[in-house]
Amino acid sequence: MNGASSLLAALVGAEVDTCFANPGTSEMHFVAALDAVPAMRGVLCLFEGVATGAADGYARLAGRPAATLLHLGPGLGNGIANLHNARRAGSPVVNVVGDHATYHSRYDAPLQSDIESLARPVSGWYRRSARPDDVAGDALDAVAAACGPPGRVATLVLPADVSWSETTAPVPPVPVRRPASPVAPETVETLAKALGSGEKSAILLGGGALGQRGLAAAARVAAATGAALWCETFPTRLERGAGRPPIERLGYFGEFVEAQLAGVRRLVLAGARRPVSFFAYPNKPSDLVPPGCDVQVLAGAGDDAPGSLEQLAEAVAAPPATPGAPAARPERPTGSLDAESLAAAVGALLPEGAVVVDESNTSGIFVAGATAGCPPHDWLTLTGGAIGYGLPVATGAAVAAPGRRVLCLESDGSAMYTLQALWTQAREGLDVTTVLLANRAYAILNLELSRVGAGAGGPVASSLLDLSRPDLDFVALATGMGVPASRATTADELVAQLARSLTEPGPRLIEAVLPGLG
Amino acid sequence: MNGASSLLAALVGAEVDTCFANPGTSEMHFVAALDAVPAMRGVLCLFEGVATGAADGYARLAGRPAATLLHLGPGLGNGIANLHNARRAGSPVVNVVGDHATYHSRYDAPLQSDIESLARPVSGWYRRSARPDDVAGDALDAVAAACGPPGRVATLVLPADVSWSETTAPVPPVPVRRPASPVAPETVETLAKALGSGEKSAILLGGGALGQRGLAAAARVAAATGAALWCETFPTRLERGAGRPPIERLGYFGEFVEAQLAGVRRLVLAGARRPVSFFAYPNKPSDLVPPGCDVQVLAGAGDDAPGSLEQLAEAVAAPPATPGAPAARPERPTGSLDAESLAAAVGALLPEGAVVVDESNTSGIFVAGATAGCPPHDWLTLTGGAIGYGLPVATGAAVAAPGRRVLCLESDGSAMYTLQALWTQAREGLDVTTVLLANRAYAILNLELSRVGAGAGGPVASSLLDLSRPDLDFVALATGMGVPASRATTADELVAQLARSLTEPGPRLIEAVLPGLG
Repeated sequence: MNGASSLLAALVGAEVDTCFANPGTSEMHFVAALDAVPAMRGVLCLFEGVATGAADGYARLAGRPAATLLHLGPGLGNGIANLHNARRAGSPVVNVVGDHATYHSRYDAPLQSDIESLARPVSGWYRRSARPDDVAGDALDAVAAACGPPGRVATLVLPADVSWSETTAPVPPVPVRRPASPVAPETVETLAKALGSGEKSAILLGGGALGQRGLAAAARVAAATGAALWCETFPTRLERGAGRPPIERLGYFGEFVEAQLAGVRRLVLAGARRPVSFFAYPNKPSDLVPPGCDVQVLAGAGDDAPGSLEQLAEAVAAPPATPGAPAARPERPTGSLDAESLAAAVGALLPEGAVVVDESNTSGIFVAGATAGCPPHDWLTLTGGAIGYGLPVATGAAVAAPGRRVLCLESDGSAMYTLQALWTQAREGLDVTTVLLANRAYAILNLELSRVGAGAGGPVASSLLDLSRPDLDFVALATGMGVPASRATTADELVAQLARSLTEPGPRLIEAVLPGLG
Repeated sequence: MNGASSLLAALVGAEVDTCFANPGTSEMHFVAALDAVPAMRGVLCLFEGVATGAADGYARLAGRPAATLLHLGPGLGNGIANLHNARRAGSPVVNVVGDHATYHSRYDAPLQSDIESLARPVSGWYRRSARPDDVAGDALDAVAAACGPPGRVATLVLPADVSWSETTAPVPPVPVRRPASPVAPETVETLAKALGSGEKSAILLGGGALGQRGLAAAARVAAATGAALWCETFPTRLERGAGRPPIERLGYFGEFVEAQLAGVRRLVLAGARRPVSFFAYPNKPSDLVPPGCDVQVLAGAGDDAPGSLEQLAEAVAAPPATPGAPAARPERPTGSLDAESLAAAVGALLPEGAVVVDESNTSGIFVAGATAGCPPHDWLTLTGGAIGYGLPVATGAAVAAPGRRVLCLESDGSAMYTLQALWTQAREGLDVTTVLLANRAYAILNLELSRVGAGAGGPVASSLLDLSRPDLDFVALATGMGVPASRATTADELVAQLARSLTEPGPRLIEAVLPGLG
């Protein structure tokens, strides 16, 4: 077999059986090998940022990596924004980048590029396969590095001649996956004592602590100690809804976080980072830990966050269980469509087992509240701040979780970075409902303009934050990529269209026309 | 004034008065400053790859740089593919990347990124502004570095606090622009003798040699010495058409180049690189110089290629002028629409002064021939091989050259990387006609699959090179971004729609439905 077939055999042997691909000439042997290794599912994406975002979404739902297939440095470049988000999500991704043949690089052909320099900032692991005999082992090392824990982007560069040359080297055995590290009992004991001190305390949960197991244990600790529970601002995957332990997210704006954490003297981090401001603002703090608050880490990256919370619950003699969020849904809204009625529509209809991919930004501020009592569902967010994550992550999540409805709440400005994901949803027949939140502005930037102290903005500045002139017609855009679409201008229309989409197979886009912030 | 205003003042003082922008929070002071510096035209792009490609196209037509405005590492990442193309084009670009405030980076906020590692591979110059007092000088250094010669991508990183803090430092004087280096008389003499030796010779022109001045001088040298003239495969800007010196491009496939250069014993490079294969293929050469051929450089990057060719013409006692290409146009085609009738339609209608942005790939193979005798026009190509250059470069070219019609010949697969450019064309009312060549496949990859020796491809491989299931509807996609659009399924329809578009103001897209290669 050739290097490409060896690579694919190694990947599927390690349970990496989905590849989000946007190939070029240097990847043709990889593509050809897909027919010889039918266990690998190749999913064509029309843009690399769709492929990398889909791999992120896949990993968040499947709990194991997908592969990508990208074309040299420029193809990797197009995928970097969503690899950045995947890195911040701790998502395992096996990022395969094709390159020129090893002997061809010195000719400085047009696509010659410094792949390593581009890849390093988003990769927790990087290797260039040097020989076809090495490829299978390199692939298994990449999978192991990707899986961590913590999950990483593992970039494997595959030169064309390594791909096309023959190898007789056997595929090595798949290494046993390394478990998350248990937390030292002394750490647990120390924190148990600290939480019992009577000082105002809070536990900030992030990463793997936001699954049901971690949340249940954290809720028990909170019940026993009085500590407040908070969810990091941008969770990778939050399991929530009726019957599950309720938890509120820290706010996006620093002043909200300051209010949320006011008076806290002891902050325990379980799978979360220390809270910091998303951006810097003149005369506002970057560090959002309250003054005088002691910060202690229960579980860091790569640690067993749910297990550590269970240990902590035992150490504080917590009750065996706490009540979950009560089941509740808003009424189906009628009348005008705005951020509140939009949220009510989602809350009234969200089905059990739904995967919500939230890139709703300003338009979605009421949705979390309106869905807190919906049947159990997962909530995915923009972990790295690189907008254009929603449609690709929804695509990958749907590939990973057939039978579950994916609801993508997508802002108009963000949608335009990676709109090509819709075509892959159509080709693969994925059960994704996109509610496209069309307020026809980079509304968040209108807020930020004054928050950074730049004033209200003159007419030129305003025009650069405005998405009208011309209005984007997302019904036409979705239809053009083969996704059925409709427009909702009232709450009633949104309810009717959303209800229909949630029960019909395949993708649909609903353009929800919302008032601007002005 | 603040750092942002100082930056803008310095840029407009150095004749950089157009900025293709996709800003975020860390760039809000730059955006706000646009109202204070009205000489700077801010052009909003909905995706960074549009901004960087537009800056490339602008530079190719204006001969001076535009600025970009990108948002941290992920925004830069989205712009890398077209910066790669700009780098290979030798286009001057002042690539401004906003970053977190200097003091904020250590908090590792979600958008923290290694901008330098991402920027270096595509940048000929890189600097991070450290203080508001430095910004104006940094901007002038960036402009000087961008202008070269040779033209470069100069990346200037602008931390948010450097942008928002006050400065009283005056804007330094604009440095005198460095001219291209003259070529040493001995080099010219040596090459004049070599070309007079009677051995079969060829001159390969590239870069700045492909303007009228360089072409005219090269044609005189050819007339005097019998040397063949060739244009590099992917010129940045080729001035051609009736009355201008005709020149043929080297082919894309190595075997074509081998045939074109067969028997050449002496190859002179004037602004061009040594010819190499675009990709590596098993058992095919990477270096396309014929065996035994001596390669000599008349003018390299940064040298005065047109001047050196004029010197050479004098040295070989060339005639004062040679005849230009004869005026000729194909008949307006009728009947079925295919690659030949498409080419005839373009040749029949291309207006004088047109700027052709060619990303037609396999569908456009006959267009160059059909337009060789059209009224004088410019031809821009994909210099770096990173597809998705056409629509953005057409956008920037139209901004740089008002009053000239831009004709973008765009393949369907390539169009989907940076389709958002259409919205900017609509907003700015640019005179761009896009002929969207819809053969519903990555047709070039179907060819490459067999050329790399991977066989015909099984059903899985074929599906990854196929853009149908579902078909993309480019009329809907363009309409959704505010660009009037129509579909041509016959040659007659294409002629009628193209004729109309070439005389009406503003953008239009024509989807030309072409048969597949199979």
